[in-house]
Amino acid sequence: MDERIRLRLDVSYDGTDFSGWAVQPTRRTVAGVLVETLDLVLGAGTATGLTVAGRTDAGVHASGQVCHVDLPAAVWAGYEGRLLRRLARLLPTDVRVRSMTEVPAEFDARFSATFRRYEYRVTDAPWGADPLRRRDTLAWARPLDLDALNTAAGGLVGEHDFAAYCRRKENATTLREVTRLDWRRDPDGILVATVQADAFCQAMVRSLVGAMLAAGDGRRPVEWPGGLLARRDRSSEVTVAPAHGLTLVAVGYPADPAGYASRAEVTRRLRVPVEG
Amino acid sequence: MDERIRLRLDVSYDGTDFSGWAVQPTRRTVAGVLVETLDLVLGAGTATGLTVAGRTDAGVHASGQVCHVDLPAAVWAGYEGRLLRRLARLLPTDVRVRSMTEVPAEFDARFSATFRRYEYRVTDAPWGADPLRRRDTLAWARPLDLDALNTAAGGLVGEHDFAAYCRRKENATTLREVTRLDWRRDPDGILVATVQADAFCQAMVRSLVGAMLAAGDGRRPVEWPGGLLARRDRSSEVTVAPAHGLTLVAVGYPADPAGYASRAEVTRRLRVPVEG
Repeated sequence: MDERIRLRLDVSYDGTDFSGWAVQPTRRTVAGVLVETLDLVLGAGTATGLTVAGRTDAGVHASGQVCHVDLPAAVWAGYEGRLLRRLARLLPTDVRVRSMTEVPAEFDARFSATFRRYEYRVTDAPWGADPLRRRDTLAWARPLDLDALNTAAGGLVGEHDFAAYCRRKENATTLREVTRLDWRRDPDGILVATVQADAFCQAMVRSLVGAMLAAGDGRRPVEWPGGLLARRDRSSEVTVAPAHGLTLVAVGYPADPAGYASRAEVTRRLRVPVEG
Repeated sequence: MDERIRLRLDVSYDGTDFSGWAVQPTRRTVAGVLVETLDLVLGAGTATGLTVAGRTDAGVHASGQVCHVDLPAAVWAGYEGRLLRRLARLLPTDVRVRSMTEVPAEFDARFSATFRRYEYRVTDAPWGADPLRRRDTLAWARPLDLDALNTAAGGLVGEHDFAAYCRRKENATTLREVTRLDWRRDPDGILVATVQADAFCQAMVRSLVGAMLAAGDGRRPVEWPGGLLARRDRSSEVTVAPAHGLTLVAVGYPADPAGYASRAEVTRRLRVPVEG
């Protein structure tokens, strides 16, 4: 009998040299590299159904991405926990599988997720970004005001129709609940936005950040980003912030595995499609 | 009258794509790029005498490098503090001049320095290095013991002849005073060695780290790195740790500018040559 089990994979990557998560012919993508390496180790087609929590765009990084994959129970058992080190040796250094855990079949990395949390790093130092962090830090030429950023952020928290910040897709709701959105200035001077929501539409985090930066450097009033929520369509006035400042840092799931299936049912019913 | 002033430059760089600090024909070096950019902005030969505290090797990074350069007082005055932003726009993103300060003519970035402090980052996670920090973190395949690393480190602190850890050069003393050498494990699991000395000979920090790692993963007794100090020549048993884990984080100078000249005199008398 070919009994199959489900594995949860926690994944980190430097998005710089990837054309995003999703497999594309002729392009280097995170999912493409993962499938290729799993096929190499386990034999082609042994691991199936790779599904991800957050389909990150080209250039976006992840320190807490989650995905799942199915494979024969006998194959998994045969590795006795050594599959992680084997993958570490074969994967390119810009993508790492940090853990592999057997999960109930009801666990769905995408639909069971209760939240996605992103961070966006910006520096307004006149000299630019720390060279060793330039791959995940945006250099902003104008001074940014932390209070202005946080006031602007406050106007975006809650359940809203984020149509102004989304590319509209047919049959896709743009209703989202932003459960956290705030800025801090780290001891090294870097401004970090933390954005958490049940789910995001495509480029939504970067659109929110772009609008807040306009308020943070004084080009727009602090009420402006929140005011755009009244719009029913994507606003052309919003500049999408560059991808390289953005990192998916965490994905949340029900604490009780009994919640995996029920959460997935709710997600499927209310949020079609979940972009990440 | 062509009065000249001295500027202290605080510099950071990602060493990955540099053949070290020192200018070399046909190679991309940090000093080469800095001189080229200063010549571009100020006119060729306007800034002269670029002198650095730590002549880092190929692949070694810096977050706290210090150098000095001389230029006409009138040129500096003409920029009214805008030279920093101008350099930021023209320098490649892997090297940044974080500050430029006028200093007394007695300040010598190399000879007035009282200490150099380096950090070395290593991870022993089975999955390897965080992709976004892989440029400045060594991935070590075997588990490392923090206590063993620190016991080994303790045997190296103090004033010793570090001949076993240096490439001997004619007329060059290998006597150095290591004033700090310890390891910590950061909240993210990364092991960080902090190494501070009056000065270092070439590849000395990486040789010390290489010896301590051998003790930290159990291949050598913890007394071994300190025991090598009895040797009068470079030990072939010591593996030089890879360059990319190493970052020059700080250089110390006398708090009182009156100390710049006297410190330089002491350095010139006792430590020929200061490698960094």
